[in-house]
Parts: sequence; C-alpha cells; structure tokens
Amino acid sequence: MLETAPQHLEIAKVLHHEIEKVEEIFSRQLRSDLSAVNDLCTHVERYRGKMLRPSLLLLTSMAVVGDPCDGSSITDRHRTFATVLEMIHMATLVHDDVLDEADVRRRGATINALRGNETAVMLGDYLISNAFHLCSTQGDSSVNELIGAVTNTICEGELLQLSNRENLDLDEETYLEILQRKTAILVGTCCKLGAQISGGSDATVQAMERFGSLLGVAFQIQDDLLDFSGDEEQVGKTIGRDLATGKLTLPLILFLADKSSDDRSRTIELIQNRDGATLKAQLGEHGAIDRARQHAVGLVAEAKRELAHLPESTARALLETLADAVVDRDS
Amino acid sequence: MLETAPQHLEIAKVLHHEIEKVEEIFSRQLRSDLSAVNDLCTHVERYRGKMLRPSLLLLTSMAVVGDPCDGSSITDRHRTFATVLEMIHMATLVHDDVLDEADVRRRGATINALRGNETAVMLGDYLISNAFHLCSTQGDSSVNELIGAVTNTICEGELLQLSNRENLDLDEETYLEILQRKTAILVGTCCKLGAQISGGSDATVQAMERFGSLLGVAFQIQDDLLDFSGDEEQVGKTIGRDLATGKLTLPLILFLADKSSDDRSRTIELIQNRDGATLKAQLGEHGAIDRARQHAVGLVAEAKRELAHLPESTARALLETLADAVVDRDS
Repeated sequence: MLETAPQHLEIAKVLHHEIEKVEEIFSRQLRSDLSAVNDLCTHVERYRGKMLRPSLLLLTSMAVVGDPCDGSSITDRHRTFATVLEMIHMATLVHDDVLDEADVRRRGATINALRGNETAVMLGDYLISNAFHLCSTQGDSSVNELIGAVTNTICEGELLQLSNRENLDLDEETYLEILQRKTAILVGTCCKLGAQISGGSDATVQAMERFGSLLGVAFQIQDDLLDFSGDEEQVGKTIGRDLATGKLTLPLILFLADKSSDDRSRTIELIQNRDGATLKAQLGEHGAIDRARQHAVGLVAEAKRELAHLPESTARALLETLADAVVDRDS
Repeated sequence: MLETAPQHLEIAKVLHHEIEKVEEIFSRQLRSDLSAVNDLCTHVERYRGKMLRPSLLLLTSMAVVGDPCDGSSITDRHRTFATVLEMIHMATLVHDDVLDEADVRRRGATINALRGNETAVMLGDYLISNAFHLCSTQGDSSVNELIGAVTNTICEGELLQLSNRENLDLDEETYLEILQRKTAILVGTCCKLGAQISGGSDATVQAMERFGSLLGVAFQIQDDLLDFSGDEEQVGKTIGRDLATGKLTLPLILFLADKSSDDRSRTIELIQNRDGATLKAQLGEHGAIDRARQHAVGLVAEAKRELAHLPESTARALLETLADAVVDRDS
C-alpha cells in the first residue's frame, strides 16, 4: 500500500525487518500439535495483507522516542503486542467473511468458502483465543484488561452493524459510531500501545490514540467506498457485499439524506433490488461518492495534526505518508 | 440435575446463593450501552442451564478447605473466575449451535435460529471477549495465561472434531482426544482453579484437575449418548445432530469396531442415510449403547477416587453426588 520515498528507504527497511519478526511470533503462537490445526493456520497466513496495525504500533513506538532509524528502540514487548493486535484483526476478518458470505479475500478463497462456515467460526475463535493467550504471556494484567475492553467494543460495533442490516433509515451518526467501535478502536489502540510501551507522556499517548482512531474511521470509509464502487480485480476481494447484505454505507447515507421523499423511494427500490450498477452511476453523478471520500480525507488531515505532538523524525514522516495512503488506495 | 439429599440441604442452599451471585456478575459484565447488545444478552441468559462449571469451582474450593457449610471461604475472586469459566462455556454453546445448525437449546430457540448465524457468531465472540476481560480484571496474568491456553485447546478440539466429520474410520482414541480437548479441559480447569484459589497443595490441585477432567469426558460421553438415543422432549434440545452432521460418537465407534467388513458396510450405509432409528435399535440390541454408558460410569468411579485427597466434608459429599449425576441424567 506504500510506495517508499528515497528518504524513507532506511526506516522502511527497519520496519520490514521488524514485521518479519512479528510474522514469526504470529506463526509460532498458532503452532499446534495437531496437523488439522496447522493446515488451517497455513491458509490464514495467506490472508496477511497490509500489516497496517503492527506497522502503526512499531512506527508510533519509534516516533515517540525519536528512534534514529535503526529500530534500536524496538523490543520483544513491542513485537508481541503488535502480533496480538494483528491476530485480533485477523480473527475479525475470518468471522467477517462468515458474516458477509464472502468468497474471496486478498486474491485467495476465504476459509468459509473453502472449508465451510463451521471451520471458519472455529478458526476465528482459535485466533482470538491465541491473541489473548499471547497477550497474557507478557505478564501485564493492565494490557490484558485494555485489550479485552477493546475486543468487547469491536463485538458491540459488529452487533450494532448487524442490528442495522436492512435499516434504510441508518443515519450518519450511527454509521460513524459503528465504524468507531468495529474498526477505529483497534487502530487507535495500536498507536496508543506503541506510544505507551515506549514511555510516551500521557498527552502523547492520548494524541497517538486519537491519531490512530481518526485514521481507523478514514480507513473503514475508504474500505466501504471500495466495496461500493471499487474494481473487484484491483481490490482483491469480493466486492458489493455491503449492498448484498443490506449494509448502508456513507455514500448511500449521504445520497438518501439529500433526497425528497419521492426520490428516496426510487433509491430504496434500487437498494432493495441490489442494483449496484445504477446506484453507483447515480451516486457518482450526484457527488455522494466524492463527499464520502472527502469526509475520509478530512479525517486523515485531522489525524496528521496529532503527529505534531511528536518530535521530528523519519518515523513520524513515514506515519504521515502512511496516513495519506489510507485514503489514497484502490485495494 | 441434582436432587438434594436431606443431609446436603444446607450446602445446597449455600451453593444456590453463590450461583445467584455468579449470575449477577455474569449479567453485569455483559451489560452494554447499546440496547441491541443487551437484548441479545437477555436471550443468552435464558440458555443458562445446569451451571455445572461454576458449581464445580465453588464446591471444590469449599471442599479443599473443609468449609463448614456456610460458604465463608468463598470470595469474589472465586465467584469471578466461576463466572469467567461459565461465560467461556456459554460462548462455546452459542458457536456450537452455529456449527450444528441446532434450532433448540434448553427448551428455547437458539440464537442462530432466531437471529441468524451472523448474530450468533458475533454474540459468541462477545462472550469470549468478555470472559477474557473479566478474567483480567483480577490482575493475575498467570490465570489469564492459563485460561488462554485452555481456550486454545478447546478450539483445537473443535477443529479436530470438524476435520473428522464424515470420517467413518474415527477410532476410540481420537474420539477421546477430541472430548479431552473440547470438553474435559474446561471442567478440569474449574476444579483446578477452585482448589488453587483456596490454597490447596500442589497434589490436591492436581487431583482436583484430574477429577474434573475425568468427569468432563464422562459428561460428554453422556451428552453424546443423549444425542444418539435420548428423547428430544426430555433432553430439551435438538437431538440427532451428531449423526446429521456426520459426527461419529462412542456407541457407533464401538459398534463399528466389532463388525466384520460386510456388516460394517451395511452399518455405514445406515449412517450415510442418517437412519437414526434403525441404528439405535441395532446398537441397543448389540450392547454398544450400554458399553458406551459403562465407559462413562467407569470414568466417574475413577474421578470419585480422586476425592480421597480431600478432607471429609459435606462439600466433598456433594461433589460425589454431582459426579454420579453426570452420567445419571436424561437431560
């Protein structure tokens, strides 16, 4: 997702090296004495994509202490919590695919499509359980409690979203509340924990949490936009799932809010007929897709302002580039 | 599940009172600021049945210290971990019902039948997450690590079971391995933790873990027997699900192991045709159902011998009664 500018080559290399270590911890944690379990986990490893969450934790950590670009401030504690957060994210992906009945993720068949929903449910559980187990090996109960509260909130967000399926009156406020809970809190926690482990001040820790949280909302809006109007080949996963499963997302919410009641019923008919192509054309013309995108861009700008709390460093510069990339992507 | 003998009335009353407190902690932990979440949790509370796991933790605790039947040895720490273990059990029930496509549990509609698989998956996740969160509020990371390892094993057991669906060569050893992982480890952990929190010696803690673990295997064999040959009205949940989902359980495994290859293919045909009635009649006549039951009864006897490690007390006597009830039940 990130093209590396020449001045970032060095830190990108450090980050890449650290992410490899995170991947090692990830695989080691999931290893079982049962081959049936290991076979499935090998498949999950193919799901791995952007590694956005561990990258944010590691970069925030480095930026907080003004790491001299050599990763010397990164410890096993950073890497372990980075792995925990990625594992939680992976668990939500596996269960989301059951929820969305999606067939393709990251250009490969989803677990549910390959092995059935039952295996996908259990494999997601195995990931959640291992995330908590790995977290507790660090012997710090307060982090266990923090992560437990975060996953509670993520589940609440998903349940709120499910209870609003087919709700054509879903408003922007509730939509953003769902995003805050199901996506933003985890991204915010990555940045918060990164700052915290590296000994950032309370003000810095809070600023980093806000940075991640704003970025998380922007990320999800962009994800929803790609699902609504992206190109399946490019996105690399089944698209149009939101419409198919009756989930209203930002462009449609903005479009509907602008309509007189007559126009509204025509749009609702298109939604109920799952007529994505016509909707995409109408929303494009009306400007609702652009406005949704602008909302995400605005959040990224707001997020970047939080970075002013950090000393100048290449890690901070890379965080800025990464923030832009969140909305500037087509996959 | 338990009829109270006159000499146990007092301790049964104490236990009942403690279980009510566990139920309060359970409800309080799940409470959310979202009504959509609270509505679902209210439904889950109707799932509550035997409360076997918290009862075992509390009784083991009392028995280890020879509690004078007044529950004075029970603290909030006991009640909290009892709640954590029940919540994990409840999560596995909710996800099991998705796996088994069961419609009825404890005489009520299952979450998946009422609200769809998606909601059942997320609600199960909410329960797991809250269990870990509640566990971490006690500030003892080593218990988090223990519980995390236990839930890893439970998921492995479920995945091993799933990978053996439609496996007509499933042997007794693998079947028992599945039971050990998916059921026995949690029951064993209840008794182990109960003994541990109450300051039992290492030998006592280990004996209590074995007691619970043996009981857990016996419990699951009895559950499988009820699914195979019980009465749906009496059992109070959808039965025949094991056969319907291609899961071989002990009576069938024993029956098949005894067959010449010709007879075996006839039995396999009955299994593949999901002909439960004929199988039940044949296995009854052959004695395989009785032998499976005897296996469970033998495990309970073995479990009860572990209780000799405890001082004599009414709590210990009630544990013995409870152990017998595990195999002596039709629901």
